[in-house]
Amino acid sequence: MNISLPETLTWQNEHLRLLDQRQLPQETAYLDINTLDDAWHAIQTLTVRGAPAIGVAAAYALAESMRDVASDNFVTQLKENAEYLKSARPTAVNLAWATNRLVELGTDQPSYAALVEEAEQIHAADLNICQSIGKHGATLIQPGANLLTHCNAGSLAVSRFGTATAPMYYQRNAGVPFHVYVDETRPLYQGARLTAWELEQAGIDVTLICDNMAATVMATKGVDLVIVGTDRVTANGDVVNKIGTLNLAVLCQHFGVPFYVACPSSTFDAHTPSGDQVVIEERAADEVRQQHAAQVNVYNPAFDVTPNSLVTGIITEYGIAHDNVELRKLLAG
Amino acid sequence: MNISLPETLTWQNEHLRLLDQRQLPQETAYLDINTLDDAWHAIQTLTVRGAPAIGVAAAYALAESMRDVASDNFVTQLKENAEYLKSARPTAVNLAWATNRLVELGTDQPSYAALVEEAEQIHAADLNICQSIGKHGATLIQPGANLLTHCNAGSLAVSRFGTATAPMYYQRNAGVPFHVYVDETRPLYQGARLTAWELEQAGIDVTLICDNMAATVMATKGVDLVIVGTDRVTANGDVVNKIGTLNLAVLCQHFGVPFYVACPSSTFDAHTPSGDQVVIEERAADEVRQQHAAQVNVYNPAFDVTPNSLVTGIITEYGIAHDNVELRKLLAG
Repeated sequence: MNISLPETLTWQNEHLRLLDQRQLPQETAYLDINTLDDAWHAIQTLTVRGAPAIGVAAAYALAESMRDVASDNFVTQLKENAEYLKSARPTAVNLAWATNRLVELGTDQPSYAALVEEAEQIHAADLNICQSIGKHGATLIQPGANLLTHCNAGSLAVSRFGTATAPMYYQRNAGVPFHVYVDETRPLYQGARLTAWELEQAGIDVTLICDNMAATVMATKGVDLVIVGTDRVTANGDVVNKIGTLNLAVLCQHFGVPFYVACPSSTFDAHTPSGDQVVIEERAADEVRQQHAAQVNVYNPAFDVTPNSLVTGIITEYGIAHDNVELRKLLAG
Repeated sequence: MNISLPETLTWQNEHLRLLDQRQLPQETAYLDINTLDDAWHAIQTLTVRGAPAIGVAAAYALAESMRDVASDNFVTQLKENAEYLKSARPTAVNLAWATNRLVELGTDQPSYAALVEEAEQIHAADLNICQSIGKHGATLIQPGANLLTHCNAGSLAVSRFGTATAPMYYQRNAGVPFHVYVDETRPLYQGARLTAWELEQAGIDVTLICDNMAATVMATKGVDLVIVGTDRVTANGDVVNKIGTLNLAVLCQHFGVPFYVACPSSTFDAHTPSGDQVVIEERAADEVRQQHAAQVNVYNPAFDVTPNSLVTGIITEYGIAHDNVELRKLLAG
């Protein structure tokens, strides 16, 4: 693509280099990962964030940590390093998945070069998936369209093109003009800090709004399409995503705006029947309180569940599914 | 009432005293108004805010400024002081209304005592209206109810009991238990800074949420009633209120939650046919950007318009109207 995308993570000169997302958008700083400890801290402190990006970063970091390990000790050390890396964010599914994949490969082929190749394959697969999501989703973005997105399901979270943002980057690259409203995404401002920044870097026309302005934007400015990412899609098509997503989906139904969810097929959780079974993480009250309300009770759910009835379609690397039948067909290939 | 309400403004020892709302909730500090300049700055810097509270404060301040004025110069000075005070917030309708009322009275009866009495009458009328709104609205709050409100249409904005909060204080005083979710109300956090604080002061069970959490609260916790205030109700019953109100009204329709608006009858604007004719103030981008997104485009409407079709009822000092016919009947007395 001929557009400027952040170098979220790169492998160069046998080193992993990470964009330091904690400093965005004020500073575009990079962090060189030279030791396993560097990687552990980068994952733990959210220097790198977003499930797929964490997985790719962990794969490279684990490979890098095995560069000078003697062959007689290789498998033992590989397993030990993998366990240590996983402890940086025990709930990150992609972190465990990527490091387990390298341990399996390294047990069969105990060599640094094989591990690097495996990490590169994980990275390449991630890029391919995002590109395919972009290609399929791009068909939804007409010239002059007004889009709206929430949180960051972008390039910063998913190696290069992102999920919700991939169709936008695809159309931007094709020279199609459109405009994106970005919800700031309280309480952690991922929309304001990350999505608005990365879309602007790519030359996309962006307007930042507060989350509570989406309704009036739909009523008075007109929104043609909402695309968001997701952390999990349950067996019935319910969508678990950043808090505020359900709010948007209800508004979309009311104002007749198509509501699309973009994600790799690996996001489908066939073992959980519906969103009702998903336990929603509640985070610290101080994230909401800030300096304004030092003592007050706070309810701070990190995610919400959007019922399948409010979802117009799900964009995957295999195509767009508009209901559960189409979804199962897509996933079955 | 036997509950603790903030002393938003008081007249004591021939002085106006204001609660300094800029320092809430960190500090409960009071500002003595000794000169007309003190009052001008207090209004200009939002030490006192909320349309009715500004009107009452201006009336007292204008009366106070005339205490030692000689009778031969009284009317000229009164008019001059009134004009100066109005310049503190030229768009505040209640500021102009209250000062004009004192100028009219003072032209007929050029005496300091008469002006103070008039200011006290304005204040008393405001208190009575809020109490009546509270009494009528209280019938909507059942024991154990879960309420949700937005922004601050509270004691801090409307001398003592507020509008949206008046039914809550009425029931609290009656010993009826209930719980209130308070939207933080981006971008200026009036819910987090002011409403959560004043409800807590009165011993009401409060939980602060981000604006984008209202949908999941309705879906998973259950909300029985939403009450908000309003800046203007147009002739067809459309409601102009703080940005985010339309968002809540759409959610209420979707989740079957009654959506009520509380306001004095003076809020009705019979000369504006509908919300379509209301020009919405757009405020500075930096209110939204904060430190997070220094350069990005921002859309920052201060208010939105909720169509009458989404309003369950309007609570006034005369009773509750559920449609335009009932509303006209109420207003006609």
